[in-house]
Amino acid sequence: MTGRVITEADIDEIALGAAVLGTGGGGDPHVGSLIAKRLIRTHGPVRLIEVDELSADDFVVPIGGIGAPSVSVERIQAESELLAALRAIEGATSRRPTAVMPIEVGGGNSMLPIAAAALAGLPIVDGDAMGRAFPESQMVTFHLAGYGPGTTVLVDHHGNEVVGRPVDGAWSERLARAATVEMGGSATMVDYAYGGDVVRECAIPATLDLARRIGRILLGRDASGAELRDDEKIDGLAAELDAVRLFDGKVADLQRQVEGGFTRGSAELEGVGADRGSRFRLDFQNEMLLARRDGALAAVTPDLIAVLDLATGTPITTESLRYGARVAVIAMPCHEKWRTPVGLETAGPAHFGYDVEWVPVEELARERAERGGSASDTKEAA
Amino acid sequence: MTGRVITEADIDEIALGAAVLGTGGGGDPHVGSLIAKRLIRTHGPVRLIEVDELSADDFVVPIGGIGAPSVSVERIQAESELLAALRAIEGATSRRPTAVMPIEVGGGNSMLPIAAAALAGLPIVDGDAMGRAFPESQMVTFHLAGYGPGTTVLVDHHGNEVVGRPVDGAWSERLARAATVEMGGSATMVDYAYGGDVVRECAIPATLDLARRIGRILLGRDASGAELRDDEKIDGLAAELDAVRLFDGKVADLQRQVEGGFTRGSAELEGVGADRGSRFRLDFQNEMLLARRDGALAAVTPDLIAVLDLATGTPITTESLRYGARVAVIAMPCHEKWRTPVGLETAGPAHFGYDVEWVPVEELARERAERGGSASDTKEAA
Repeated sequence: MTGRVITEADIDEIALGAAVLGTGGGGDPHVGSLIAKRLIRTHGPVRLIEVDELSADDFVVPIGGIGAPSVSVERIQAESELLAALRAIEGATSRRPTAVMPIEVGGGNSMLPIAAAALAGLPIVDGDAMGRAFPESQMVTFHLAGYGPGTTVLVDHHGNEVVGRPVDGAWSERLARAATVEMGGSATMVDYAYGGDVVRECAIPATLDLARRIGRILLGRDASGAELRDDEKIDGLAAELDAVRLFDGKVADLQRQVEGGFTRGSAELEGVGADRGSRFRLDFQNEMLLARRDGALAAVTPDLIAVLDLATGTPITTESLRYGARVAVIAMPCHEKWRTPVGLETAGPAHFGYDVEWVPVEELARERAERGGSASDTKEAA
Repeated sequence: MTGRVITEADIDEIALGAAVLGTGGGGDPHVGSLIAKRLIRTHGPVRLIEVDELSADDFVVPIGGIGAPSVSVERIQAESELLAALRAIEGATSRRPTAVMPIEVGGGNSMLPIAAAALAGLPIVDGDAMGRAFPESQMVTFHLAGYGPGTTVLVDHHGNEVVGRPVDGAWSERLARAATVEMGGSATMVDYAYGGDVVRECAIPATLDLARRIGRILLGRDASGAELRDDEKIDGLAAELDAVRLFDGKVADLQRQVEGGFTRGSAELEGVGADRGSRFRLDFQNEMLLARRDGALAAVTPDLIAVLDLATGTPITTESLRYGARVAVIAMPCHEKWRTPVGLETAGPAHFGYDVEWVPVEELARERAERGGSASDTKEAA
C-alpha cells in the first residue's frame, strides 16, 4: 500500500491474504480482485485511512456480499449494484458516506469495498468488523460492543432494493438471509454504517495491511523482502501469524451442500508426511469452524482455521476444496474481542450447533505438544 | 355508513360482507373487527371518501396484513404496528398520507385499514385494489394498469421495519413473503401507495359499501329493510350479488396445510338437499380458487367463490372450514378488470398451477342449466 493508497499492484497480495483470514469463506477473492483491479485502473488508487484517523464527522459504510460463496463465485457484483447500495444508505440515513470499510477481511468481501471505494471516489478504512470472515451478519465487533445493525441495505442484480431497520443483529441476519435466498443466493449488503467515532471504538484495525503481509509471503517474499521457496511459505506464514500448523493431509471424504443461503459440510483428511496414520476432520458453514485430529479438538471457532494447498500455500475455500487435494491446515488465535463471553456466545461453537467447548488454539497446541504430538509446528518442542 | 362515516355500528356489517368477498381468505374479520371497533370508540368515526373525490394531491396508503390467515388468527396486529407502517411509508417517501385504503376488501384486510384510519385520524377510501381477496400482493388492479408496487413497507410485532423498492409486483411479493415467513408468518404491509389520481384510475370503487350491503343481508335485513329469516339469507344474498348458488353439501374430506406463508388445500363436499348424490370439490390457496361439481368446472378464479354456513349464511374461511360442516357454495363474477388478458394472466387458474381454462361463472351456470342441472339458482329455469 504505497503511501497509504491501495494500487492495482496491492490487490493480489490483499486478496490472497484475505483468503487466508477468510478461513474458507467470505466469497471468492479472485472474482472480487478482478473487479477491484479494473476499477482502480479506471478511477485511480484508493486512499487508505487508519481507524485512528476517523472522527465523529465521518460516516463509514461497510459494504460487501451476502450469500453462499458457491453462488457468488458464479455471479459478479455489478458496479451498478455497489453504487445502488451506497446511494440507498445515503438516501435512507440522509448522511453522505465519507469512507467505506470491509465488514470482514475475508475473501471477496475484502475486495468489494475496495471496488466500491474506487468507484465512488471514497477512501477505505484499514480495518474490519471481524478480523476474519464469519458466516452470519451479526458476527461483528459492533455487535460485541452493543451496537445494532442500524439502517441496512440489500440490493440485488435484478434492481431490487430493500432498506431494513431490524431490531437487532440476529433479526438483520434472518431477514437479509431470507431475502438473499429469494434474490438468487447472493446480494450486496450494507449494515453497521456508523459515525467514525463508533468505528474507532469497534473496528479491528490494520487488517487490510495484515492481509497484504500474508499475501506477500504467499507470493514468495518474507517480511524482510527475501525470496521464499514454495515449501517455505506455509512455515513462513505460520511464523508471521503466530499460527499453528495443525495437519498435513489429503482430502479423503467431502460432504458439502448449499442450504438456506449457506455452504455447509465437512471434510475428512488422511495424514501425509509427518502426519501419516492420523485423520483430521474439518466442519464448515461458509467458513472453517471446527478442526479435530483423531477425534481430539485441534481448533475451534472463533479462532481462525485456514486450509492451504500443501505445495504452494495458496488458501483453499470451502467451495474450492476438492476430493484428493493435498492440504495443510493452519490455525491462529482470533482477535481478543472474540475471546470475551459475548464474543464466544456470538461466534463460539455452541452458536453453530457444535457440542464442544471453546479452548484457545494455542492451548490446544500446547496440550498436544505436552502429550508428544507431532504437528510440524511443535516438532522441535516435542 | 351514517353520513359517509364508518361508525362502530357499521363494523359488523362490513366485516361480515368482506368475509364473503374475501372468498375464504383475507384474514379473520372477527379479530380485525374487534380492533376497528375499539379504535373507533376511542378515536371517533372514520370519514369515508369516494374514489371520485380523490385528487393528485392526495397520498393514499393501502395498509393490511400479509401472511397465512391461520397465523393472523392467533396474532392481532398491534396499534404500534399500524402506526409504525404509516410512519415508515411517510419517512421513506417524504409524503404525508392523506387517506388509507384497503388493498383488498377481504376478511381482516378490510378491517385493518379502518383501524389504521381511526388511529391516525385519516379518512378511508371506499374502494380497494382487488374487489375481493387474493393471496398474492401483486394481484391488484394497480398492477393490471401497469403500476408497480412503489415503495413498500413491512413491519412486524418484534419492531422490525423493512422498506422495499422492488422492481415489480412479483418481486415485491417474493421478498415480502420471505420476510413474513421469518417474522413469524404475519406482518403489516404497505404497498402501491400512490397519489389520488392513480387511485382514481385503478381502484375498484364502493367495495366497502358493497361489503356493508352484503353484511346487512346476512345480519337479517334485505335491501328494503325487511327482515330475512336465516333460510332466506343465502338466496337473498345471491339475488343482491347476481351470484350463483353452486352447491349445498357437507364437508366429507379436508386437506389443509400452511406452507411458504400460505394456507393451501382442498375440500370435498357431499351433496345434501337438492344436491344429494353429487360431489363438489374446492381448491384453495388462502382464498377459494377453484370449484368443481362431479368433476365439471363450476367456478374459477378470478371469479369469486364463497363458502357459507348452510343454516345461517355466515361466511366460512379456508381456515375455519371443518370436517362435517354443512355449507352452501356461491360464486359471483369478478370485476371486469380481472376479465382482461392481463387480469387473467395475473390471477387466473394457470397462475395458481391449475390446469383449467377460465370460463365466466355465469356461462358455466348457463351451460349447466341447459344440461338440466339442478343448482338451486337455476331450478326455476331448468
